[in-house]
Amino acid sequence: MQPLRVALGERTYPIHIGAGLLDDAQIYAPHLRAGMVAVLSDRKVAPLYLARVRKALEKIGARVLEVVIEDGERAKSWATLDRVFDALLVARCGRDSLLVALGGGVIGDLGGFAAATYQRGIPFLQVPTTLLAQVDSSVGGKTAINHARGKNMIGAFHQPLAVIADVATLDSLPERELRAGIAEVIKHGFILDPVFVEWLETNIEKLLARDRGALAHAVWRSCELKARVVAEDEREAGLRAILNFGHTFGHAIEAGAGYGEWLHGEAIAVGMVMAAELSARAGTLRREEAERVTRLVARAGLPVRGPKLPLERYLELIQVDKKAAAGKVRFILLEGMGRAVLRGDIDAQLVRESIAAAVQ
Amino acid sequence: MQPLRVALGERTYPIHIGAGLLDDAQIYAPHLRAGMVAVLSDRKVAPLYLARVRKALEKIGARVLEVVIEDGERAKSWATLDRVFDALLVARCGRDSLLVALGGGVIGDLGGFAAATYQRGIPFLQVPTTLLAQVDSSVGGKTAINHARGKNMIGAFHQPLAVIADVATLDSLPERELRAGIAEVIKHGFILDPVFVEWLETNIEKLLARDRGALAHAVWRSCELKARVVAEDEREAGLRAILNFGHTFGHAIEAGAGYGEWLHGEAIAVGMVMAAELSARAGTLRREEAERVTRLVARAGLPVRGPKLPLERYLELIQVDKKAAAGKVRFILLEGMGRAVLRGDIDAQLVRESIAAAVQ
Repeated sequence: MQPLRVALGERTYPIHIGAGLLDDAQIYAPHLRAGMVAVLSDRKVAPLYLARVRKALEKIGARVLEVVIEDGERAKSWATLDRVFDALLVARCGRDSLLVALGGGVIGDLGGFAAATYQRGIPFLQVPTTLLAQVDSSVGGKTAINHARGKNMIGAFHQPLAVIADVATLDSLPERELRAGIAEVIKHGFILDPVFVEWLETNIEKLLARDRGALAHAVWRSCELKARVVAEDEREAGLRAILNFGHTFGHAIEAGAGYGEWLHGEAIAVGMVMAAELSARAGTLRREEAERVTRLVARAGLPVRGPKLPLERYLELIQVDKKAAAGKVRFILLEGMGRAVLRGDIDAQLVRESIAAAVQ
Repeated sequence: MQPLRVALGERTYPIHIGAGLLDDAQIYAPHLRAGMVAVLSDRKVAPLYLARVRKALEKIGARVLEVVIEDGERAKSWATLDRVFDALLVARCGRDSLLVALGGGVIGDLGGFAAATYQRGIPFLQVPTTLLAQVDSSVGGKTAINHARGKNMIGAFHQPLAVIADVATLDSLPERELRAGIAEVIKHGFILDPVFVEWLETNIEKLLARDRGALAHAVWRSCELKARVVAEDEREAGLRAILNFGHTFGHAIEAGAGYGEWLHGEAIAVGMVMAAELSARAGTLRREEAERVTRLVARAGLPVRGPKLPLERYLELIQVDKKAAAGKVRFILLEGMGRAVLRGDIDAQLVRESIAAAVQ
């Protein structure tokens, strides 16, 4: 399978998608440099795949440093990042070092931010081992850690040299995380491609059964759709905001429930239901199409109702979201299936009603 | 006075140099955006200039948030940075906010890094109030904080929208800091411009007496020389490394003596003496030229001898410096006055001797 290209001028990079790529030394080879290769992973993923990545890297002569951190969203903190910096400094990693982020979204975000800021920036490879990371974090160059006052508040745009998405690693993914990844796959359909939504409506059971062909197609198409948006708007000045469909509500759910309680994809699933509901109430989406959104989310085994928090708490959490422009919250709505729009003029009452309609 | 332009393609920005610019609302005006303007300063600088900057900004309709942190190199830490993030988040600063870094090098470095990473990057203005910051930090887009294991180890390249260098603010600068700033001015002559070195040899007393004309010329010429190098090598891939002349030794002195004990410029002054000594010993610089380096540094009232640390401690500290490539330390030597070269093949014994020759 030819790699997919994310077209970003001199920062253009390939995404390799396929089964068994983890062991393919030739995929890593073009990116090796003179210095150390620091492979960052977490306590869950490292025992499964780190030795294989190390072996492939050593085959082509790399000096490998292993950096293993705790797993889970809570690890996306300054404290963990500082431990990573410490490991790199103790091992005397210079600017000619390469960082390999082996794991899910947390490893990709934190590892990418470590690479973006260690000695003012070193190159890195993404080796995503969850569906969510393969379809989402691996395209776009967004890296970040969380702040006590909000998710992903501290970060940078830093593109990887390449992404290696080995769909065979999805075999080890817990059921719940598989579904959370499907949330982002579905999202790309909702905002960009009605034909892909139909494909998903037909093939959702295959994805849940981990059919490799279906998974590879879903990863490929998701990355392709997202890459097209990112290529047009690398720094998130405009168009790219549509990729945050469901995220304004979703981030509020994650923060309100306590980071780590809800998986990102689960929160986004409910967020999409809320955003579709808001689209229907704001008159941009027909009621039946909003129901199609809810139905597909439910068929993927994802939640369609948010945690039972006071309505005021939801609203408060939404205010602090990064998409707030000049104190005014902008929402991403659907204007029909496969077409998203950014709106800054949404009546607060409609927002309240849409949240209330989708809370447990 | 026309602003100097730092040519960096779409990131090209002006440096305004002159007396009284702090109060000139029209200089800030082109850079205002919809959101808040967060003015970051420290406890020493804020009482002197913050009200004036605030007044100029408010005159053109800005909503101003003041963020005042402790002063000194110790403030260049994650803990302080986190307090800045906290203030920005509490005030609901969005991505359309502007950060103004009002102060010396610490404020510029920390403020620039805050701007580089807050919500993955917001724009910022540099308003340097020390000579060091005016001639050094304001050109190049280097931002950073320190790590327990090394200075400036965590950072980013993030160009300001503009630099406002008000030479009248140098009136309030302590004598010792004025001299530390002159160290970087001199450095630009040593590595790039023999004519400027001659001008400095003639005018060093005027600079020490804070003659405004002499200071404005020194700031202008330093920024111009540095800007030329940065324009050719924005990401420090090669040429730009020569700007670190004296810094390999200088950083070791700062770290070895404990951050904050030596001013950056003082450490760099001794670092340049050591680097000139090394150049003479390595045979790239005539002995008389090395002595010219030491003499000008001494005439500027700067130290020419490093702190009394064990030689082994110096060598250990040099190893961890960012310029270490693949474990091998590269040194910036002079090949004649006004011409620098990067060398990775320097015998460790010569390094020892050069340090020993310039230690108290």
